[in-house]
Amino acid sequence: MFKQLDRHDIEVLTNIVGAEHITVGGDIDHEFTHDELKNVSGKPEAHVYVSDKYQVSKIMAYAYENNLPVTVRGAGTGLVGSCVPVHGGILLNTSKMNHIIELDNVNLTLTVEPGVLLLDIYEAVEKENLFYAPDPGEKTATIGGNISTNAGGMRAIKYGVTRDWVRGLEVVLPNGEIIQTGGKVVKNSTGYGLKDLIIGSEGTLGIIVSATLKLISKPKKTVSLLVPFHNREEAIKAAPVLIKNHVTPTAVEFLEKQSLQYSETFLGKKIPHNNFEAYLLLSYDGNTDASVENDIKIASNMCLELGAIDVFLVDTAERAKSVWTVRGGFLEAIKSSTDEIDEIDVCLPRSAVSAYLAYAREVSEQLHIRIPYFGHIGDGNLHIYFCKDGMSQSDWESIVHKGFKLMYDKAFEMGGVVSGEHGIGYAKKAYMIDLLGDTQIQLMKGIKQVFDPKGILNPSKVI
Amino acid sequence: MFKQLDRHDIEVLTNIVGAEHITVGGDIDHEFTHDELKNVSGKPEAHVYVSDKYQVSKIMAYAYENNLPVTVRGAGTGLVGSCVPVHGGILLNTSKMNHIIELDNVNLTLTVEPGVLLLDIYEAVEKENLFYAPDPGEKTATIGGNISTNAGGMRAIKYGVTRDWVRGLEVVLPNGEIIQTGGKVVKNSTGYGLKDLIIGSEGTLGIIVSATLKLISKPKKTVSLLVPFHNREEAIKAAPVLIKNHVTPTAVEFLEKQSLQYSETFLGKKIPHNNFEAYLLLSYDGNTDASVENDIKIASNMCLELGAIDVFLVDTAERAKSVWTVRGGFLEAIKSSTDEIDEIDVCLPRSAVSAYLAYAREVSEQLHIRIPYFGHIGDGNLHIYFCKDGMSQSDWESIVHKGFKLMYDKAFEMGGVVSGEHGIGYAKKAYMIDLLGDTQIQLMKGIKQVFDPKGILNPSKVI
Repeated sequence: MFKQLDRHDIEVLTNIVGAEHITVGGDIDHEFTHDELKNVSGKPEAHVYVSDKYQVSKIMAYAYENNLPVTVRGAGTGLVGSCVPVHGGILLNTSKMNHIIELDNVNLTLTVEPGVLLLDIYEAVEKENLFYAPDPGEKTATIGGNISTNAGGMRAIKYGVTRDWVRGLEVVLPNGEIIQTGGKVVKNSTGYGLKDLIIGSEGTLGIIVSATLKLISKPKKTVSLLVPFHNREEAIKAAPVLIKNHVTPTAVEFLEKQSLQYSETFLGKKIPHNNFEAYLLLSYDGNTDASVENDIKIASNMCLELGAIDVFLVDTAERAKSVWTVRGGFLEAIKSSTDEIDEIDVCLPRSAVSAYLAYAREVSEQLHIRIPYFGHIGDGNLHIYFCKDGMSQSDWESIVHKGFKLMYDKAFEMGGVVSGEHGIGYAKKAYMIDLLGDTQIQLMKGIKQVFDPKGILNPSKVI
Repeated sequence: MFKQLDRHDIEVLTNIVGAEHITVGGDIDHEFTHDELKNVSGKPEAHVYVSDKYQVSKIMAYAYENNLPVTVRGAGTGLVGSCVPVHGGILLNTSKMNHIIELDNVNLTLTVEPGVLLLDIYEAVEKENLFYAPDPGEKTATIGGNISTNAGGMRAIKYGVTRDWVRGLEVVLPNGEIIQTGGKVVKNSTGYGLKDLIIGSEGTLGIIVSATLKLISKPKKTVSLLVPFHNREEAIKAAPVLIKNHVTPTAVEFLEKQSLQYSETFLGKKIPHNNFEAYLLLSYDGNTDASVENDIKIASNMCLELGAIDVFLVDTAERAKSVWTVRGGFLEAIKSSTDEIDEIDVCLPRSAVSAYLAYAREVSEQLHIRIPYFGHIGDGNLHIYFCKDGMSQSDWESIVHKGFKLMYDKAFEMGGVVSGEHGIGYAKKAYMIDLLGDTQIQLMKGIKQVFDPKGILNPSKVI
């Protein structure tokens, strides 16, 4: 179906990006054959670092003309194989397109190249007392990747997800044409929402070559509360009540003794007050000490009314770092606890979380597999891991197959979706088909066909 | 191209909706041949009130089979002709699908039929101490219409636009199939963003038959400030500075003596302190008296530093009603001041507003036409009106043609878009083509073709 790269193709690519930015065949580092989760693999025939949008455009025009598959990669921190070149071809790496183009202090926008890391965005805007609110766990992800999966993160309750913070995108289409959709404008009802279609399309419809992000002024103060409960049900049930309260938390994370211990062991550090069964980790922000103090007073009282054992103020930089580092270490800790993992990233209505996690424990017992989890419980977005724990490859595959089916079916029954923030990529396509049904899949295939009639851009992903 | 409705078609429609819900030919009220602005007109062959999604589905399946054009209408408050049946056919009126389906107090969602009015949404949620933040000027618009144009309104600075408040949509496709996209979930990265594609598509891709809206807890206190400035430039320049400040306003509206006088004359009521050249009307909300008082103290001082003549607190219900009624009356007042108007709804980067309004005044002088305006200045979203003022039809058309071209070209040059919140519909298509260029238009046409291969749904609109 696709053409394999020949010597001439390599020459053309070399002329576009320069010899120092291309690697071919066996010279390509193994890391570029997989993403963070390593469950999907594929060898690129050529790996190229692009340095500007014109190079991207030239490569796509050539690839389109010559029927060469192209897969885009940023930092490779994805978990569903979106950036893995499963058909070989060109792996187009945007991680060196990592310049901040403009911080506009009047319109409150930041325009960046796609390879800029999330942590660099925070640094650039916060020193100007500005704030980019999306807060996905993986800070070394690129903004291009974040936009491509519509990454969510920990501040979604109050501030929304990546989609809500993208004002404009510049995109190279599969045939090499460049379009600008949106811009520095706050409102836009000018035709179909192409920007919103590109967001979350996991590099299958076009290649983001610059993004204009919304900024707000940085909240002056943030305080977290670590709130232990007698058991998980009480913690989980408290979450929606706290969100409905007049003081909106920025984050409502759920920690359980088990996942906490994995992370503490992995990181070799402990959180304060670590001897309870289950916790909510809450954050509140605001612009005056008084308003944040008032919020946490209200929230604390409410937690105690809802059965919390205590409320620990995480108000020093040191305590905050300790707690959030342990929270942030969950995925790495679970990975390091076993030989292989696979992940479920469902998002459920908040009201269904408790029952769903109970079901996860049932599945764990039924299939004799360890299933640790944690979650952005305020969003109903759970990260649930199946751990291989040394079982044979065939047992593993069979149990994942069976267990995932059970878990996704239950999620759909409860009004949930396949992915809250990690995307569909290569690994989760079958479950998306189960959820959405043929009509929506055909619409999505139609849309893919409109953008990419030859199907050369990130083939076999999403749709 | 389309089939005209014959006796059999009318019989089928009558069987679906019942004889009391269909009107045909000359019996159809004239109001259903135009929208609020009356610049676009078209006579439906049949006007049907639908009462549930199954009727919508049956009508679409039949229309699709028989090549009958269908146009959807809610309250008809649009300004660009989106709901006008320019090809005749069936006018499908959703205004009697006006039931609130569910207020979910745990997941904080409101699920409604498309014909529910904005004012009914506010009433339903606010009595539960919840809040649906989008605040378009026209409260008698339907939520279906609001979603179809991605309506913005006056609280967009702090709370975003309609798109940000839609969690899920149930949609009847042109062939009668029903899909559900999104739901009660807070995050969703499950395939392409079909929900976001339907939002803002002005009834051309599918018919919204229910919508699940996001709610938050209602801010306990809102205070407005009416801030007079010596001249418009000072007022306009203050806006982005106030937004960048740590206390984020919910609204930043711009009032000028002239538009104020139109509205006061029309409504027969005056705002307090009405003798200044230009004003900003600011709102701040919060959950404690102290926090709102702190915000308005900071904002007031800042206004004075930025050259405001005074800062008037709009803190009683009576004063707030007076000021916001006059602000809300602008469009009606301008309409009533002349025999015909046409409208520009550009959205610009905030930084460009002052220069753009100066250009509007230039165009007004150059073409000898009255061009009143007002705007959601905090969003850079301006509503600019050309007034016919008794000129001949041919002069009017020629001046609108010439003047609009000047105004849109200048907006595009400044990074603006055709529509901030009113949409493209029938009236603004040519300007959208000018802005977006052929590549994006072809993508949009392709998308339309995917959803509606026969082009029967709201033909000749948007694309």
